[in-house]
Amino acid sequence: MVFRPIRFPRGRGFSTGPVEPPLRWPPGSLPDVTASLDLTADPVELTAALVDIPSVSGEEKAIADAVEQALRAQAPHLEVVRNGEAVLARTNLGRGSRVVLAGHLDTVPINDNLPLRRTGSGDDEVLHGCGAVDMKGGDAVMLHLAAQLRAPRHDLTLVFYDCEEVEAERNGLNRIERELPEWLAGDLAVVCEPSNAAIEAGCQGTMRVEVRTTGERAHTARAWMGSNAIHAAHPVLQRLAEYTPREPVIDGLQFREGLQAVRISGGVAGNVVPDECVVTVNHRFAPDRTLAEAEAHLREVFDGFEVTVVDGAPAALPGLSAPAAAELVEASGAAPVAKLGWTDVARFAARGLPAVNFGPGSPTLAHTKQEHVAAAEIRRCADVLTRFLS
Amino acid sequence: MVFRPIRFPRGRGFSTGPVEPPLRWPPGSLPDVTASLDLTADPVELTAALVDIPSVSGEEKAIADAVEQALRAQAPHLEVVRNGEAVLARTNLGRGSRVVLAGHLDTVPINDNLPLRRTGSGDDEVLHGCGAVDMKGGDAVMLHLAAQLRAPRHDLTLVFYDCEEVEAERNGLNRIERELPEWLAGDLAVVCEPSNAAIEAGCQGTMRVEVRTTGERAHTARAWMGSNAIHAAHPVLQRLAEYTPREPVIDGLQFREGLQAVRISGGVAGNVVPDECVVTVNHRFAPDRTLAEAEAHLREVFDGFEVTVVDGAPAALPGLSAPAAAELVEASGAAPVAKLGWTDVARFAARGLPAVNFGPGSPTLAHTKQEHVAAAEIRRCADVLTRFLS
Repeated sequence: MVFRPIRFPRGRGFSTGPVEPPLRWPPGSLPDVTASLDLTADPVELTAALVDIPSVSGEEKAIADAVEQALRAQAPHLEVVRNGEAVLARTNLGRGSRVVLAGHLDTVPINDNLPLRRTGSGDDEVLHGCGAVDMKGGDAVMLHLAAQLRAPRHDLTLVFYDCEEVEAERNGLNRIERELPEWLAGDLAVVCEPSNAAIEAGCQGTMRVEVRTTGERAHTARAWMGSNAIHAAHPVLQRLAEYTPREPVIDGLQFREGLQAVRISGGVAGNVVPDECVVTVNHRFAPDRTLAEAEAHLREVFDGFEVTVVDGAPAALPGLSAPAAAELVEASGAAPVAKLGWTDVARFAARGLPAVNFGPGSPTLAHTKQEHVAAAEIRRCADVLTRFLS
Repeated sequence: MVFRPIRFPRGRGFSTGPVEPPLRWPPGSLPDVTASLDLTADPVELTAALVDIPSVSGEEKAIADAVEQALRAQAPHLEVVRNGEAVLARTNLGRGSRVVLAGHLDTVPINDNLPLRRTGSGDDEVLHGCGAVDMKGGDAVMLHLAAQLRAPRHDLTLVFYDCEEVEAERNGLNRIERELPEWLAGDLAVVCEPSNAAIEAGCQGTMRVEVRTTGERAHTARAWMGSNAIHAAHPVLQRLAEYTPREPVIDGLQFREGLQAVRISGGVAGNVVPDECVVTVNHRFAPDRTLAEAEAHLREVFDGFEVTVVDGAPAALPGLSAPAAAELVEASGAAPVAKLGWTDVARFAARGLPAVNFGPGSPTLAHTKQEHVAAAEIRRCADVLTRFLS
């Protein structure tokens, strides 16, 4: 499907020119743009159709409408609920276990990379465009499964949500946790973020701290009357430069921690000895440590300096020994790897679900102008999940 | 004299309320505000009168008018020239040598510290207010000498100039150098900036450089794929922290150099390994080094790093062996000290004149809301210069 701008009839409040996305449909007049979201199509074509519905964070209405209508029309075996710009769907087959598949519908801002562009063909076909890899390929796989798997082995919950690409507070999963927490319950969560179609298990935690040095202002011509806070930051940078990150193996997976200065600032004027310098440090830590343990570690590393925690998010253990997770690994036919970046996997882990990332495309392409996804990976993900759930 | 707001008659273009400084006199209607700048008064009273004429840089017209009119009316033995908002005056007695006295008329912005406030009395009287110490006390001493010394031992040039407190390019001395260079010629320059009424000789030079480290961006979750430019700045801060500044003795005066980071910046985003860090360093160097030698020294200190010169100003040798300078030291009755900060003294030194700072008040009070000057120091400066020039 190619998404075309809609023309509204002349009238108060509407422009007569083409309406550019994000579209704000007048109540009761939702145009028939969703009819061609064909859930029975090849998931590659479904990916292409989703990419061509712009859905920058905060402007997901059109894509959420399209997903909702397609599910209601083409997957009548599912219970469907709309929550803000999130769409939730599930089977209620009374299975002994439930798998939650989750994918966000929003993208980072468009960067001259829409509409969709295709290169190659057949097994070598590649889809290019905003959101192709992050993560409409994964969303398409989920929609494909929703329509195809009428009697999955595990009960199935599908969570299409909004605002993942912006501040954590706006993430649609927060609202769903508050308003519909039972929709996030289950025995395994699969977040279909790009993982090169490999199972990435667990995820590392992240913590940001500010390490502050202080001094005393003075004119640089009489510097001995002051004390230079930037000079005093030298041991902070030295400890960072000399730090050896841990590489623990957890549940058979190799994690790699990190400790990186992400910002440094200090200075009053060109002729003043500065009285403050702040180094912002981002620590990525493996899931054998809690947030509190990560903080304690940072306070030890920067012992003798003022350390302030800016923000943090806990790590998630791989949890691959859980039965459903082991089945998924089996179905994938490949060794799982550790997830190093922080993803919404950790939100499910925090709710007690084993959770993995599994989706088409390379995470290193996310947020780039050149983002693209191989058709073969989209099909592989759909195949693995179909095998797992059939 | 207390400067009072003038009321203009009602009319087009004028407010009927009090006109606040900076005052813009309508052409040909210069009000009689200068009549009471009494050059025969005690220089302390003259200081008070000058403080009460607001003269923030760029708004010196009122004070320059007052100074010009007072000199023309009360010092008819002087040749007087107006140049922009600078006022120049000199004797032409055919003496074998000439002393140039220089003072800027402008101040930093007013900071709730006008009008003038007095505390104490007699020898303990102190004048408080914007410009009191920087440098209307010095200007008052110059105006006092201008009117009192009808037959000085050295010919005398007085330079009252504008825009010293702002960017170097706007400094009125630049314009005078271009348009009236002969007015800056002489055998000794005395810049009457605050020096605790001691002779401060020479001045240190200043140079600012940027020391830059580079790296490669990467996501902090995969930091080993990048290279952290902030961590790479660790040896730069280490060299700064461990640097021992020289303290050379030149012409019997003790100088103290300095090498200080005045700014540090680096960082892309909270989850990105940064690819650039810049440390701005201010070097203050003694007058036994040229600008080029100072730069070579900095390149040696930061060997292995990218060093970019931002700006610099040469140092000035004390030059106290010149006859007129020696006489001034003798008249002051106290040991001269080295000037560590950079002042316009260096502009005169660059023109070949021995040049010193000599003025009432503490330079550490300059630019502070609390600036003030002791009446006793104003009188002491006037006495020393009178003795020297009589």
